[in-house]
Amino acid sequence: MSSVWGNNIKISLFGESHGKGIGIIIDGLPAGFRLNLEEIAFEMQRRSPGKNNTSTPRKEKDSFEIISGFFEGKTTGTPLCCMILNHDTKSDDYEKTRYYMRPGHADYTGYMKYKGCNDFRGGGHFSGRLTAPIVFAGAIAKQFLKEKEIYIGSHVLDIFGIKDKAFDETTLSPDMFNALAQKEYSVLDDISSEMMKNAILDAKKEADSVGGIIETAIINVPAGIGSPFFDSVESRLAGMMFSIPAVKGLEFGTGFDMAHMKGSEANDQFTISGGKVQTKTNHNGGIQGGITNGMPIIFKTAFKPTPSIGKKQQSFDIKDMKETELEIQGRHDPCIVFRAVPVTEAGAALVILDILLEKDEL
Amino acid sequence: MSSVWGNNIKISLFGESHGKGIGIIIDGLPAGFRLNLEEIAFEMQRRSPGKNNTSTPRKEKDSFEIISGFFEGKTTGTPLCCMILNHDTKSDDYEKTRYYMRPGHADYTGYMKYKGCNDFRGGGHFSGRLTAPIVFAGAIAKQFLKEKEIYIGSHVLDIFGIKDKAFDETTLSPDMFNALAQKEYSVLDDISSEMMKNAILDAKKEADSVGGIIETAIINVPAGIGSPFFDSVESRLAGMMFSIPAVKGLEFGTGFDMAHMKGSEANDQFTISGGKVQTKTNHNGGIQGGITNGMPIIFKTAFKPTPSIGKKQQSFDIKDMKETELEIQGRHDPCIVFRAVPVTEAGAALVILDILLEKDEL
Amino acid sequence: MSSVWGNNIKISLFGESHGKGIGIIIDGLPAGFRLNLEEIAFEMQRRSPGKNNTSTPRKEKDSFEIISGFFEGKTTGTPLCCMILNHDTKSDDYEKTRYYMRPGHADYTGYMKYKGCNDFRGGGHFSGRLTAPIVFAGAIAKQFLKEKEIYIGSHVLDIFGIKDKAFDETTLSPDMFNALAQKEYSVLDDISSEMMKNAILDAKKEADSVGGIIETAIINVPAGIGSPFFDSVESRLAGMMFSIPAVKGLEFGTGFDMAHMKGSEANDQFTISGGKVQTKTNHNGGIQGGITNGMPIIFKTAFKPTPSIGKKQQSFDIKDMKETELEIQGRHDPCIVFRAVPVTEAGAALVILDILLEKDEL
Amino acid sequence: MSSVWGNNIKISLFGESHGKGIGIIIDGLPAGFRLNLEEIAFEMQRRSPGKNNTSTPRKEKDSFEIISGFFEGKTTGTPLCCMILNHDTKSDDYEKTRYYMRPGHADYTGYMKYKGCNDFRGGGHFSGRLTAPIVFAGAIAKQFLKEKEIYIGSHVLDIFGIKDKAFDETTLSPDMFNALAQKEYSVLDDISSEMMKNAILDAKKEADSVGGIIETAIINVPAGIGSPFFDSVESRLAGMMFSIPAVKGLEFGTGFDMAHMKGSEANDQFTISGGKVQTKTNHNGGIQGGITNGMPIIFKTAFKPTPSIGKKQQSFDIKDMKETELEIQGRHDPCIVFRAVPVTEAGAALVILDILLEKDEL
Repeated sequence: MSSVWGNNIKISLFGESHGKGIGIIIDGLPAGFRLNLEEIAFEMQRRSPGKNNTSTPRKEKDSFEIISGFFEGKTTGTPLCCMILNHDTKSDDYEKTRYYMRPGHADYTGYMKYKGCNDFRGGGHFSGRLTAPIVFAGAIAKQFLKEKEIYIGSHVLDIFGIKDKAFDETTLSPDMFNALAQKEYSVLDDISSEMMKNAILDAKKEADSVGGIIETAIINVPAGIGSPFFDSVESRLAGMMFSIPAVKGLEFGTGFDMAHMKGSEANDQFTISGGKVQTKTNHNGGIQGGITNGMPIIFKTAFKPTPSIGKKQQSFDIKDMKETELEIQGRHDPCIVFRAVPVTEAGAALVILDILLEKDEL
Repeated sequence: MSSVWGNNIKISLFGESHGKGIGIIIDGLPAGFRLNLEEIAFEMQRRSPGKNNTSTPRKEKDSFEIISGFFEGKTTGTPLCCMILNHDTKSDDYEKTRYYMRPGHADYTGYMKYKGCNDFRGGGHFSGRLTAPIVFAGAIAKQFLKEKEIYIGSHVLDIFGIKDKAFDETTLSPDMFNALAQKEYSVLDDISSEMMKNAILDAKKEADSVGGIIETAIINVPAGIGSPFFDSVESRLAGMMFSIPAVKGLEFGTGFDMAHMKGSEANDQFTISGGKVQTKTNHNGGIQGGITNGMPIIFKTAFKPTPSIGKKQQSFDIKDMKETELEIQGRHDPCIVFRAVPVTEAGAALVILDILLEKDEL
Repeated sequence: MSSVWGNNIKISLFGESHGKGIGIIIDGLPAGFRLNLEEIAFEMQRRSPGKNNTSTPRKEKDSFEIISGFFEGKTTGTPLCCMILNHDTKSDDYEKTRYYMRPGHADYTGYMKYKGCNDFRGGGHFSGRLTAPIVFAGAIAKQFLKEKEIYIGSHVLDIFGIKDKAFDETTLSPDMFNALAQKEYSVLDDISSEMMKNAILDAKKEADSVGGIIETAIINVPAGIGSPFFDSVESRLAGMMFSIPAVKGLEFGTGFDMAHMKGSEANDQFTISGGKVQTKTNHNGGIQGGITNGMPIIFKTAFKPTPSIGKKQQSFDIKDMKETELEIQGRHDPCIVFRAVPVTEAGAALVILDILLEKDEL
Repeated sequence: MSSVWGNNIKISLFGESHGKGIGIIIDGLPAGFRLNLEEIAFEMQRRSPGKNNTSTPRKEKDSFEIISGFFEGKTTGTPLCCMILNHDTKSDDYEKTRYYMRPGHADYTGYMKYKGCNDFRGGGHFSGRLTAPIVFAGAIAKQFLKEKEIYIGSHVLDIFGIKDKAFDETTLSPDMFNALAQKEYSVLDDISSEMMKNAILDAKKEADSVGGIIETAIINVPAGIGSPFFDSVESRLAGMMFSIPAVKGLEFGTGFDMAHMKGSEANDQFTISGGKVQTKTNHNGGIQGGITNGMPIIFKTAFKPTPSIGKKQQSFDIKDMKETELEIQGRHDPCIVFRAVPVTEAGAALVILDILLEKDEL
C-alpha cells in the first residue's frame, strides 16, 4: 500500500502492464459536472507512446471506458471507475528474463517487497503505463479547475543539459499552456526543441536513454489554500510528483538556488496594485508557509533517464543469486520526459482539486 | 488541516509560538519500549535556539513533559502526548505589527486562510518552533530504529554557496553520525564549517540571513520497504520534508543531476558480494520504484534563507491595504539550517518507522 | 464519499445496478497467497438472487473477473481489482418512475445528495447489488483468516418474529458454519426454516416483504486485538454492518438485554482451564474495552423489510413536487435477509483481517 | 490505534485515568468561530462524577485548559488542544490488584494487547474518564451546529427495565432538549425518573450496578448528507457510539423491531406539506440509504451495567495464572447511564459536524 490517495477526493489505482487492464476509481467528485470526453482523450493521447520515433514503439491506444459514476454525460457523485484494457502486450519477451533484475528498474525492489510474487512482466504494477489512469483522472480534475479559471501548463526545461528558456511568469496564460500542449514537443523555444529531439535520437542510436527536467506552472489559484503542517501545498504536490516513476528531484520557485541567496533577496516583497496583493518576485513559487499566496505556483521536477536501455549492463539472476550480463531486447523508450509532461500536470491538477474541495466554513 | 500525519503511527501536532504551549501526540507506538529520555533531550537541544551567536537569541529550554502513554519508563502502546510550554515570549513585539505582512513569512497566506483569526504572534502555528515536537517524536522514532540497527545522520552540505564535502557512502556509520550530531556545527570538513559560520555572522551584521542545503543519509534500511504508487519512499519522505518550514527543494541520490546523465550511467548496476546484493553506484539514493534496495537512502533538502531579517523591506498593511516599509525589530535568526539538521533527521526517522510498521504478512 | 474503507487493507467499491458493471479494488493484501476461486464463487452464489422463489427473480450470475493483483494463482501484493459486469438489467422499468421517490428507498435521499444526477435506475449505487463485490472481497478475507484458523458463521435468527434457536457458543465450529452455508436457508432449526420460508411466501403473495435478524459468530480470534478508542472492534464491525443496505440495528453479545442486567450478572467472570483464560459467560460477545478477549465474537444485525414492494404506497414526484400513489411493477425481493447472510460474514471477515494486519511490534 | 477520528475534522484523544492528564486535539475547525466557554463547562459538568449519590464519589472538577487554536475568544483554524489535568487520583488503590483482571473491564484485553505495559491504574486509557475530552469536543461541535439550527437532545429511556416514555417526534425542540439537559436526571417522565433513581440506589446498596438505554434525537439536519457505502450516517454514528465504553447495542429508528414488520409498514411514506417533503412515520430514524432525509435522526444506545462493582467475583491473577476471588474496594459508580447522556450527544454532534464539513461542490 498504498494505491489510494487523497483527502477530499479519493483515487484508487490498479493494474499491471501486461495483465488484463489498468484503471482508476475517483470518489468524491461533485455531482452533476458535465465531462468533456474529447478533452480527456486529448490528455491521454499526449501521454501515450508510439507517437513518434523518440518514444517507445509500444502502441497503446489507451482507449478508456468509464464503468461507473458517469450518467447522462455528467458525474453522478458516486465513484467514477475508468478501465483501460491492455492490448499490445508481448509477454514472452519478459518470461526469459524473469529472474534477471534490470538495473534502474523496480525488478529487485519489487521482488523483495512482494517476495517474488508480483507480476514482473513489463514492470507490472511499476510500469510507467500506470500513469495513464493518472492522466485520465487529472484530465477530469483539470476540467473542474477550469471552472474556477485555474490552469496548469508545463514544458520540458532541460533534456540532457539542453535547456529551454524558463517560464516568464508575466506571460503565463491558458492560451500559452494550450499551445504548449498542442505541440509535438512541449518546449517554448523551437531551436531547443530540435536540439532536444536530436539528443534523444543520439541516445536511441546508442541503445541508451536520457533524462530531463519539466517546469510546471499553475495560475489563478486563490491565496489561502493549503495547510500547515503536513498538508502544505508543497508536501501535497511533492507526495504526488515523487509517485511518478523516474522523478528524483523537485523544487518550488527558485528552489535549490535559494540556498545561495540572502533573505533580503529571497523574501518576495509585496506590492499592491489595483487593490490586489502581489509580490515583486516569486522566489517562493506561489507558496508561503505551505499556503498559496495567489502568485503562480511554479515547480520543477527532475526525471532520471529511462532505465530501459539496450546497452549491455551488469546485473544478477535472483534465483541463482549469480551476477550476469544483461542485454535487454525489444522496445525501449529513449526518453520519457515529454510523455511525462501531461502526467505532472495531471498530478498537479488532482492535488489542487483535492485541496480546493476542503471546506473551511460550515 | 492537517496536523495529523502517518499511516501506521499517527502524529498530531498542535500549538502556537506565543500561546500556552506546543506539543504532539504519537499514537500507534509499540508497547513496552523503554525510552531513553536523555537521548530525547539531546536531540531537542540540537534544535533549540540560543546556543550560540549564529542563531536567534530566543532562549527556550524546550523542556518537554510526557503527559500520557508512558508508564514505568516504557511506552504503553496508548497515545503518547508530549507538552512543551512556552516561556520566553515577548508578545508585545508583535502587536504593533499585527497587520504588517512580513515578506517571506506566512503572515499573508495565514491571514487569507484563517480570515485573520489565527494567532499571528511570532508566526503562531507557522513558527519554526513547531519543529520542536517533531524532533521529540523523531527522537523516539530514532530509538525504535536503532533496535533494527537503522541509523540516520546529516550534515550541512552548503551555506550560501560554501560547500562541505559530500557524504562518502562507503564510510557512513553510526559513529560518524554520532560525531556529526555532537559537533556544534554538523559539518564534515572543519574548514568549511568555519567559513560557513563566518558567512552567517556576515549576514547577521547586515541584519540579513542565509540559506543552505542539508544532506541526510539513512543506513541499514532493509530492501523491500515502501509502496507504489502514492506511498513511495520518496513520496513519504518528500511529504514530510516539505512540511518543514523553509524547505523549497528536495532530491534523492544524484537528483537533479540525473537529468544530465544517460541511462547507462544512471542505472545503478548490481554486484553480489558475500551473497549480498549491492549496487556499484547509488545514483538512485537507495530507492527504486519507490521501494528501498538496501543501499543507503540519501537525500538533500534545500532551505531558503530565514525570512526574519532586520533589513528594511517593502510590505503592506492588510487592514488598510496600503503599502508600507517594514523594519522588523528584535530577535532574528540569521540561519536556521544548522538547527534544521535534527529536524530533517526526525522527519526521516518518523517516515521510516511508519513504513516499517506496515505489516506485509498475516 | 466514501467508497473507500480500511486501515491496513483498503477496499474501494464502485458501480451502479444498471450501469456497465460493479466491482472492487482491494489493496494491501499480503503477496503470495494462493486464492481458491471456487470458494469465492461459492460465497458469491450464496448471495446471488434468483436461486429460489423466496428471492428476486433477477438472474445475475455475478461472474467476476479479476483484472489485476493476481498472478499465477496467487496474490501479487499490488491492488487486486475485481469486475462484475451487469447483464440482466431492464432499465426501461425504471425510466417511467424516474421522479417517483419510492418510500423506504434511497431515491429521495440520493436525489438530494447528488442533486438529481445519480444513476437512479434500480437504485444505482445504492442497490443491494453493490454487496456482491463486498462478498467477493470478504471471500478472500475469509481465506486469509482460515490460515489462522479463524472462522465466521451466521444464521438467520428471526424472520418476521419466527425465531431460530440461538447459537450455543460451546458448539460453534468450522463444520457447523460450513453446514449452515451449504443449506438453502441458513437456519439451525429446520422447522423454523420452513416457517420462515412460508412467512416470506405469504408476504410475497401480498406483494409485500419481511425483515429479520442475523446472528453471526467469529471463532478463534486471539485475545488482544482491536484498539481503544475509535477503532474498538465493536466500532469497526458496526461501521461495516451499518454500511450494508437495510441494517437498522446491531448488538454485541447480550446487547440490548444487558440494559436489564446487574453488573454482577453482566460481568463475564473468568476461569482458567488448561492454562487458557476463558469466561464462564459471554455477555460481552468476546469484546471488552473494544478489544477481543479470545471468546467467540457474537453479534446480531437487524434488517428492515425490503423496501421494494408491489403494494400501493403514497409517494411524490420530485419534479413536480406533487404527492402521488405508487405501485411498483416488476421484480421484487420479498426478503433479502437470507441473501444478506454471506454479506454480514464478508463484512466481518474484512474487519477482522484489517485489524489483524495491524503491526504491534517492530 | 486509533485515537484519531474524523474525515473533515480530526480529533486526537490522549491520556490515562491516573496519569498526569487527559485531553484532545481538534483539527479542522473553521476559523473565527466564537466559543462559549460557559456552555462547554456546562456540558462537562453534566458528565462529571460526584454530583450526587447515584454516581461515583470521585470528584473531578474536569477543569479544562485550552492550550492552542483559540485566540481572542475565537477559533484560529489551527489545531485546538484541550488539556484536563488529573487530580483526585488514588493510585494506591490499584497497585495491590495490579495483576487481578477485573471481570467486565478491559484489564485482561488491555494486558493482552499492550503486553502488560499499559497504565492499569483506574483502567488507564480505557477509563470512562476519557469521555470527558469527547464531551469537550462535542460541546464545541454543538455550538457550530447551533449556527445551522441543528440541535441534539437525549434522555434515559430505560434503567434496569424501568422505562421513560419515548420521544414523541412531533414535540422535539431545542427548548425541550435544553430542559432535559438541565434536569438532574435526564428523563421525560418524573415518576420514571424517581423509580430509576431508586433502582440505582438499590443496586448501590448491594455493591452492584445497573445498565440502561439512552434515546437520542437530532433535529433540523438537512436532507442529503451522509454517503454510501462506508460513510453512511448510520455507520459514522455507530462507529462513534461503539467507541463509548459500555455501549453494547445500537438501533436507528424502529431498529430491531423492524425485523418484525412488513415492508408496507416499515416504508416511511411521503407527504408534502407547505412544499416540504416529510414522511408520515419515521421508522427509518431519519436515514435512508445512509443519507439523511430531513426527518429527526433517532437512535438508541444500550449500556451494560458498570463493571466496577463491590460484590465478590471470580477472577484470576495474570502473573501467576491462578483463579482468585476478587472484592473491589473503594469507589464504585452504580450506574453511568445518566453521565453517558452528554457523551452520546457529544459523539453525535462530532459526527454530524464532520459530515457537514464535507464539501460537495467546488
